[in-house]
Amino acid sequence: MKPPTALTTVVYYTGPLRRLGASSLGRLVVLAIGLTAMTAITVPDMQKSAGVWLSACLWSCLAFFAVEGYVRARSVARADRDRSYLLTAPGIVDALAVVPVPIALICGIAPPTAWLFASLWILKLTRSSPGFAQLGRVFILEAKPLASVLALFLIILFLASAAMHVLERDLQPGAFGTMPASLWWAVVTLTTTGYGDEVPHTHLGHILGAVVMICGIATFGLWTGILATGFAAESRRRNFIQTWDLVSKVPFFQTLDPSAIAEITHMLRRLEVPAHTAVIRRGRVGDCMYFIADGEVQVEVKPAPVRLGSGSFFGELALLGDNVRTANVVTIVPSTLLILDLADFRTLTAHHSELARIIDAEGKRRMSENQRARELLLESGAASS
Amino acid sequence: MKPPTALTTVVYYTGPLRRLGASSLGRLVVLAIGLTAMTAITVPDMQKSAGVWLSACLWSCLAFFAVEGYVRARSVARADRDRSYLLTAPGIVDALAVVPVPIALICGIAPPTAWLFASLWILKLTRSSPGFAQLGRVFILEAKPLASVLALFLIILFLASAAMHVLERDLQPGAFGTMPASLWWAVVTLTTTGYGDEVPHTHLGHILGAVVMICGIATFGLWTGILATGFAAESRRRNFIQTWDLVSKVPFFQTLDPSAIAEITHMLRRLEVPAHTAVIRRGRVGDCMYFIADGEVQVEVKPAPVRLGSGSFFGELALLGDNVRTANVVTIVPSTLLILDLADFRTLTAHHSELARIIDAEGKRRMSENQRARELLLESGAASS
Amino acid sequence: MKPPTALTTVVYYTGPLRRLGASSLGRLVVLAIGLTAMTAITVPDMQKSAGVWLSACLWSCLAFFAVEGYVRARSVARADRDRSYLLTAPGIVDALAVVPVPIALICGIAPPTAWLFASLWILKLTRSSPGFAQLGRVFILEAKPLASVLALFLIILFLASAAMHVLERDLQPGAFGTMPASLWWAVVTLTTTGYGDEVPHTHLGHILGAVVMICGIATFGLWTGILATGFAAESRRRNFIQTWDLVSKVPFFQTLDPSAIAEITHMLRRLEVPAHTAVIRRGRVGDCMYFIADGEVQVEVKPAPVRLGSGSFFGELALLGDNVRTANVVTIVPSTLLILDLADFRTLTAHHSELARIIDAEGKRRMSENQRARELLLESGAASS
Amino acid sequence: MKPPTALTTVVYYTGPLRRLGASSLGRLVVLAIGLTAMTAITVPDMQKSAGVWLSACLWSCLAFFAVEGYVRARSVARADRDRSYLLTAPGIVDALAVVPVPIALICGIAPPTAWLFASLWILKLTRSSPGFAQLGRVFILEAKPLASVLALFLIILFLASAAMHVLERDLQPGAFGTMPASLWWAVVTLTTTGYGDEVPHTHLGHILGAVVMICGIATFGLWTGILATGFAAESRRRNFIQTWDLVSKVPFFQTLDPSAIAEITHMLRRLEVPAHTAVIRRGRVGDCMYFIADGEVQVEVKPAPVRLGSGSFFGELALLGDNVRTANVVTIVPSTLLILDLADFRTLTAHHSELARIIDAEGKRRMSENQRARELLLESGAASS
Repeated sequence: MKPPTALTTVVYYTGPLRRLGASSLGRLVVLAIGLTAMTAITVPDMQKSAGVWLSACLWSCLAFFAVEGYVRARSVARADRDRSYLLTAPGIVDALAVVPVPIALICGIAPPTAWLFASLWILKLTRSSPGFAQLGRVFILEAKPLASVLALFLIILFLASAAMHVLERDLQPGAFGTMPASLWWAVVTLTTTGYGDEVPHTHLGHILGAVVMICGIATFGLWTGILATGFAAESRRRNFIQTWDLVSKVPFFQTLDPSAIAEITHMLRRLEVPAHTAVIRRGRVGDCMYFIADGEVQVEVKPAPVRLGSGSFFGELALLGDNVRTANVVTIVPSTLLILDLADFRTLTAHHSELARIIDAEGKRRMSENQRARELLLESGAASS
Repeated sequence: MKPPTALTTVVYYTGPLRRLGASSLGRLVVLAIGLTAMTAITVPDMQKSAGVWLSACLWSCLAFFAVEGYVRARSVARADRDRSYLLTAPGIVDALAVVPVPIALICGIAPPTAWLFASLWILKLTRSSPGFAQLGRVFILEAKPLASVLALFLIILFLASAAMHVLERDLQPGAFGTMPASLWWAVVTLTTTGYGDEVPHTHLGHILGAVVMICGIATFGLWTGILATGFAAESRRRNFIQTWDLVSKVPFFQTLDPSAIAEITHMLRRLEVPAHTAVIRRGRVGDCMYFIADGEVQVEVKPAPVRLGSGSFFGELALLGDNVRTANVVTIVPSTLLILDLADFRTLTAHHSELARIIDAEGKRRMSENQRARELLLESGAASS
Repeated sequence: MKPPTALTTVVYYTGPLRRLGASSLGRLVVLAIGLTAMTAITVPDMQKSAGVWLSACLWSCLAFFAVEGYVRARSVARADRDRSYLLTAPGIVDALAVVPVPIALICGIAPPTAWLFASLWILKLTRSSPGFAQLGRVFILEAKPLASVLALFLIILFLASAAMHVLERDLQPGAFGTMPASLWWAVVTLTTTGYGDEVPHTHLGHILGAVVMICGIATFGLWTGILATGFAAESRRRNFIQTWDLVSKVPFFQTLDPSAIAEITHMLRRLEVPAHTAVIRRGRVGDCMYFIADGEVQVEVKPAPVRLGSGSFFGELALLGDNVRTANVVTIVPSTLLILDLADFRTLTAHHSELARIIDAEGKRRMSENQRARELLLESGAASS
Repeated sequence: MKPPTALTTVVYYTGPLRRLGASSLGRLVVLAIGLTAMTAITVPDMQKSAGVWLSACLWSCLAFFAVEGYVRARSVARADRDRSYLLTAPGIVDALAVVPVPIALICGIAPPTAWLFASLWILKLTRSSPGFAQLGRVFILEAKPLASVLALFLIILFLASAAMHVLERDLQPGAFGTMPASLWWAVVTLTTTGYGDEVPHTHLGHILGAVVMICGIATFGLWTGILATGFAAESRRRNFIQTWDLVSKVPFFQTLDPSAIAEITHMLRRLEVPAHTAVIRRGRVGDCMYFIADGEVQVEVKPAPVRLGSGSFFGELALLGDNVRTANVVTIVPSTLLILDLADFRTLTAHHSELARIIDAEGKRRMSENQRARELLLESGAASS
């Protein structure tokens, strides 16, 4: 497989960024500037040398978020009359971004301290990250086992602290002389953070410490195992729903029987491609075909490029034996593609042989059409000469 | 998908807490107060200023646990004549919570030290966490590979300590001059805790340290992998059994053939909802339907709300094409619902087409009934006017 | 579900230990004593006060391992004429445990240093851990992606060290003045060990440090993901093979068709139970049935207990609707049982209805037999009176 | 199962190294030497004592990479006229390895500093690691949830820093007096690195620190869960494609129906074996059979060894009941084998009974042939005597 050119790579990697859209990107930039200014204003040197500029910057960001919040609240109010925007989660985020700083200033808190409330702006990130709901669901669905792991964590924490307090309090009254100090050691050790500000010195303390660390790893492993299991299930579910909506837009899939549709929906992957981006490059080795759920692409074949719109498919030759791409395919507008992998295609056609036949027939039809167009071109060329 | 209101979110998140029940929540509060008092009493300042209050608090908690333990022991003794409650795991937990502190005080141990045995109260958490048995099973079933990882851990530990002892004992007699000290370094490093109280200084020591850290990550990864695998299997198993018991309470499922029941049981998720909680909100986008395994809900349709009891289902329109919810659905009593996701429903109906037909018929029947009720309302309105 | 008695719990948890067998347990004890003595002899105080005893202890352990190695080498030589035991992995482990210490002493190395070679005894653990081969296979099968993660780790390591060296060498010539020191910082940070002996002090250094830590977590996550995936596959494979061998010993399974056998083999779990251990306790809630692959159990029913040998099954009522156990079942000899869970049984019978019929018929036959035995007892009692 | 001899083990473990090929191994050695020299030259002592040698070594490595890059650029230019090698990812890696050091030296940067650019040589590792593309795909496909976890990380980071800054700035103006310092603490804690250079001292600070650590573990667990899920999917996909290409080279598989081929392709594992390596050893217990996708092996049976080429299979007796290997099998040339496990074979034959029949027939044919050859040998021996 030939390596991608650096250019494609850049396009590919900045794709997700561009897909965020201008407004979303703008908000992220304002957020980054605001948080940087908030961080800088707490440094006395910066405050002296550039305090005015930083204040101006912070007030501008605050104004931006205030306007943004107002616009959104109004548009929500129009669409959905019967509830207050301020009682929804994004409404609270918007309010927390705007309200606390002025109130703190009015209450007479010193500006650098008051601006610390600007750290609440970071909550705006929840808006740009569509995966948050997914993470939240994993936590809710796996609440029981996660609570058990937390309980296990607390049990080890308390028993280890009490034991260490008994073992080391005479030798190190500062570090282990009280239970709160001992608990701090236990939590630092059990999470394998290990600051090293409190370290056992006796042999028994070392053995107990070793047991706590190993328990920490075990607890951690359970925690990870639970989240991995939950996330895999949630991911599969979400993927199916999103893909199903797109599958219904591709006429080709409607010709299949329901069990084939359900099976193929599990296999397809979504890809959002910005406009004017190469999806397929001539001469590369291909291992998947593409369905256009939404958008338009241009296949750069001679004599004239062919445009394919929503519901079409391309790149099917890669699945039918000929795996070197024969033409560039470029998106015209931002498009949503469904990718069917070679691996999945072969598993699928093993059970549903009609699928291969339909794709094969369409591939041949296109080839002959292309051939005829080329002959016509030659004839017209011959005629014009 | 519209975001949930903050209120629903709060209801949703406090749900599990409320489900714990008043008695369980009460026990958790007593536990928290007791452990806090136990922690506070070890701090000399607190002991001087509030020693009497803390003692009173601790004695009260002890009394609470003593009474609780006695009540439970008696109720168990009645139900199950032929064995002693004190020989069961919860019996031991109850005894450990009550007995050690008085004995320690009688033996003449100073009160703050004697009250350290109150840290055993944390074991009460095992009672409120139903997932403990599940975690225990994972450890038992995966005992062999986990023992192998532990053996690997010990092998690296001993070989690394011996090597580091040889490399650094002349330069740092305090930190690496003896094998116990060297073992302490190895365990702190291999678990990636890294206190920093013992750090190699030679170049060879650094290289060995780097190898130990990387081995630590590998060991950790294996450990996590084993627990993740085991937990996924155990979780799937437990889920099936619990859901199966609920499925038998829904008449609708009994009309399906056995293979469809087994398949659907793997797909359903349980949700316990407290009373007076909104399950469905009008105007939201829905991606699942609900079966009532136990409890009662109220569908807020005009002219009069409809009540649905155990064995009914609702929210089925979301799966049949119309995915905006048309009415609020609120629980009347604490209810156990079974959720069928859109993704799973579609996979299911691909194999068992009768399922969609039954749900569709029921949906239509309800709609026409609703329609008729509305017409009747209009007529009666017309008649009364 | 009633909690298990503490006694059963102890039996259950010490089961794996007992299963190790006396010889294996003995070896572990000798190993523990030897390693403790080796550790102690490096401490000057211990050496002075108990040097003779420690030496005696170490020489005894060495003698034990020498005899053990000799016995094993001879038995292997008999069974397998055509290769030398010393060239096999266990042969090398046995040789490493015995040879290096005497050689070191002969070469004139001081005893406490020479005995450090006794840390090689820890390699004996590879013999008692049957899961080692499994872990090794995971590493071999996943060698390519693991190597890629290691390469990624090295790339981040070198680039971060070079950058940090440039950023901090003027401020902290000791910690970051040379590339080796900088590399040491990078490896300590990237593995999230964090000793804290070398910490960046500049703002840019902090930002670079933060990036390295986050990269460390990502690398770690990939590493864990690869091992989890590999381990799950390997575990499934090994389980199937071991269970298949046992399935062939149970006549009941031979009546099923091949596809059911393959399916059931994936579902069964093995459990090795020592003699005289309760497998089922009367009055408990059961969620699985048992097949006896090897061994013998006693069902404690009235009037006389029934013995079941290899190839029988018991506990089937739990799967047929009646889930409270009606009799104690205790092993007579160490037995290997195959467990079929309720969840798997239901999935299975959905596809293979004959399975439920056979088990049901056998259950009824036993009940009526039991009934007849009881009637006979009553009659004989009536006759004798 | 008998343990492998140490020799086989060594062969087995060095196999992947040998498979890298001489050129690739050579490049790795040059890389290691170059990076070591680069590291050494930054140490003042080394520079004084061996500066000339280190310089010579570095220049040689640079020359090697320059030549290598030039050769590769030319060969790529020939094969692929229409794009510049320098714009591809490997082209950039090659350029970065050669160009920066001379430019830095020309710009007047001191040699030890200029040679720091040699750390870019480590990027050459991306070339020898075929799994890099796979890791990259996982990151791209899981971009959304990973971004959400990163956002979660940032949210906790900012809120915790601001809170800790408020709590501890008066007590520790150095460590928590400014937001940048506080952020540094938060990132060190949230990644569980825990340098210990900044540690909270107040009780509230300890509680906040504990919460941050536990959040750190949760974030980490989510991160690992996402990568594990993504990696499992990607791994399955890649494996299928690579195996499919090899399956098409084995005539035996072509006799199966398409659904059996798809199923078997999911089950086969690839193994690349160097020449003259034992694949099967007589007397061992076997649990898999082998198909030769590419290469040649020699079965060491009496009277004369049998050679099997691409498309043949061997070791099938292990799957047909007789699981002790009856002959050594050694590769003649570097070979690519496909392994079919006992577990998978049994699952497969349960659905596709013709598979077992074909393999059984072939096995019997071979045995009888072998038998006849032995008889012929005896006859000829009898004749010659």
